[in-house]
Amino acid sequence: MSDLLHIDRDRLWKTIEASAAIGTFEAGLRRLSLTDEDREMRDLFVSWAQTSGYAVTIDAVGNIFVRREGTDTQADPVVIGSHLDTQIYGGRFDGVLGVLSGLEVLRTLDDNNVRTKRPIEVVNWTNEEGARFTPAMMGAFVFTGRFDLEDVHAKRDPDGLTFGSELKRIGYCGEAPVGGRALDAYYELHIEQAPALDRNGFDIGIVVGSYKVCSMRIAFRGVTAHVGPTPMDERQNPLVGAGYMIAATNDIGLKYAPEDGKSTASRIDCHPNRFGIISNYVELCVDYRHPEQAGLQAMEGEFEAALKQSAEKARVSAEILDVWRYGDADFSEELISGMRQIAPQISSRVHELKSQAGHDAYAIAEIAPTAMIFTPCKDGITHNTGEDIDPERTWPGVDLLLNAVVMRADR
Amino acid sequence: MSDLLHIDRDRLWKTIEASAAIGTFEAGLRRLSLTDEDREMRDLFVSWAQTSGYAVTIDAVGNIFVRREGTDTQADPVVIGSHLDTQIYGGRFDGVLGVLSGLEVLRTLDDNNVRTKRPIEVVNWTNEEGARFTPAMMGAFVFTGRFDLEDVHAKRDPDGLTFGSELKRIGYCGEAPVGGRALDAYYELHIEQAPALDRNGFDIGIVVGSYKVCSMRIAFRGVTAHVGPTPMDERQNPLVGAGYMIAATNDIGLKYAPEDGKSTASRIDCHPNRFGIISNYVELCVDYRHPEQAGLQAMEGEFEAALKQSAEKARVSAEILDVWRYGDADFSEELISGMRQIAPQISSRVHELKSQAGHDAYAIAEIAPTAMIFTPCKDGITHNTGEDIDPERTWPGVDLLLNAVVMRADR
Repeated sequence: MSDLLHIDRDRLWKTIEASAAIGTFEAGLRRLSLTDEDREMRDLFVSWAQTSGYAVTIDAVGNIFVRREGTDTQADPVVIGSHLDTQIYGGRFDGVLGVLSGLEVLRTLDDNNVRTKRPIEVVNWTNEEGARFTPAMMGAFVFTGRFDLEDVHAKRDPDGLTFGSELKRIGYCGEAPVGGRALDAYYELHIEQAPALDRNGFDIGIVVGSYKVCSMRIAFRGVTAHVGPTPMDERQNPLVGAGYMIAATNDIGLKYAPEDGKSTASRIDCHPNRFGIISNYVELCVDYRHPEQAGLQAMEGEFEAALKQSAEKARVSAEILDVWRYGDADFSEELISGMRQIAPQISSRVHELKSQAGHDAYAIAEIAPTAMIFTPCKDGITHNTGEDIDPERTWPGVDLLLNAVVMRADR
Repeated sequence: MSDLLHIDRDRLWKTIEASAAIGTFEAGLRRLSLTDEDREMRDLFVSWAQTSGYAVTIDAVGNIFVRREGTDTQADPVVIGSHLDTQIYGGRFDGVLGVLSGLEVLRTLDDNNVRTKRPIEVVNWTNEEGARFTPAMMGAFVFTGRFDLEDVHAKRDPDGLTFGSELKRIGYCGEAPVGGRALDAYYELHIEQAPALDRNGFDIGIVVGSYKVCSMRIAFRGVTAHVGPTPMDERQNPLVGAGYMIAATNDIGLKYAPEDGKSTASRIDCHPNRFGIISNYVELCVDYRHPEQAGLQAMEGEFEAALKQSAEKARVSAEILDVWRYGDADFSEELISGMRQIAPQISSRVHELKSQAGHDAYAIAEIAPTAMIFTPCKDGITHNTGEDIDPERTWPGVDLLLNAVVMRADR
């Protein structure tokens, strides 16, 4: 591939700025899935697509597919995707950069009058973040068939509103079936969300694997009692069970940090959670990650022992209500190999690394050849309104996306 | 005192049953302060008082005083009090028994045509529990002047409603000034809320002191970040700080349990508390109690060290937002001495003990000679809808209240 294509950097930056104006919150964004802000961003994305003449398809979980036709209209499409929703303290680039880079790829092909053999689609997956409706990566996992559409429609946000009613309310419960069709390949560009590229001077990250992730929701059940006179050895305080588990989770993370294991207590709900009373129910979300499956298993072994011990010390029951695992699917060697050919022609600062965060690509990797490109983000800070990027260190990754997709789409 | 008076057990039990029908929840009660249920119970209490011809005065914090006049109308009154509000998982007797026993004392004097020299008043203190508006013992502490009336009116419940607006809504923001008058003595009868009387076969508890209590509300402040890739040694997770502190609080309680120290993590609020994100703010309520001031100080020393260490390990800040101390005021030796004379004439199963829970009496002890009587509650279980008493083991305590009050009121 001698003649590399290049995206229109100014145009891409303008679309990012337009996105950054919808759901602006502090220096970043608060654009939770299926809110008015999400609708506004979706409307803008769809209007951009229609202005360029691309077909827009919306499926029953709200995933939006924008399609630039190929010369072989029957060929399976090459798909580029990510998400336009954000965390509750979200940044301007997490997910957004991937979807808008996909749109920029299509527009660049128009500019250059390139007709690819295969159709190219850009997808905005619904509710990647899981910040409003849990768990994460909902739209992508319904697409692959791992999540059930009806189950997802019945999920409730913290205010009790259902996913299905909110999807209809914002006008994005489409008529297209979810999934059930073949993708030739799936590419996702994303900010790294860790500091490896940024701190080590790399501009392009070729993702060669994923950290193994296990998230859990645990219920601790105890008995309400007076915080004062109740004898210490008769208490059944579920908040104490959760407290020991939060501490143990962090200790396990610190222990495995040298091999880059991580573990986090992220969310807690305590009932009735009032002054003067020992609560009777606590839910805790924890998250374990490790570069290797064996390492994750070792962490999980320590987790299980700590959970048993925490519950015993607090004299409460502990039940694992949900387990979400991801990062097990492998990325495509073929797609990675293609990117390895192109990347050095774009930048000398290319690095191969594993993905630590969850991405829609993890879902799609279960049903189609999948690849990810990382671009640097400042200090790896994300899920924080201070999330930032250096545009000059971002464009090389988008050019890699463009050229890798074109190469694949002409195959 | 040769001729002891006796209460009408059936009548008292019927008032308890009438109370138990207002705000019924599971086997117990949910009658949070200034709710419709609280209003309904107050209305019933006032109607009982008016039927008997007692004067009813309501002050600006909603405390209700029911007065049976003495022969010396200028003499400072002997006051009997407790509270009619309950915890969110409350029992039928906590507080209620004390107020209704006070009413029963007045009615018994009517039955026996007894005129006391001093007036006797029965008071329902507003919001003893602190389960809706924090902190506890609000009405009594405004009465003593420790809490400011305007501050209390501005307190908000978890739904954001103010104490003042809710007090007006239920029609109990009275015109009488709060406090500012002398009480000759204050008596409070209460279920023990610990198992000492019940398990050791005692029916009457003469309270000779109080556990020293320190409650705190602590803020942990961190930085939102991704639960996944954020390096372990760069995290500032306030939930982790709180988790180490919950664990340490329980460990301190267990360490001091042999000398009957207790410590509790009771309540936690985590923001934004969403899936996938490290939160940036956690509030935690903890509570330390010890029979002796020196013991409490030792516990607090360990608490402070643990708080510092917890914050450091989690790389967050920790700030103590509020400290509530009580149990420092001494009960009246004179009133205790009077009860010691009478109690053996009523029961052979009399025990002297300290109070572990907070009570309105703790507040009033700061401004007037104060005494408490405990009656057994099953296994000491309280702040739980399963709270229960044996009526036959309760009446002796109420008879002690009756006769102690009459003796004092004739002084």
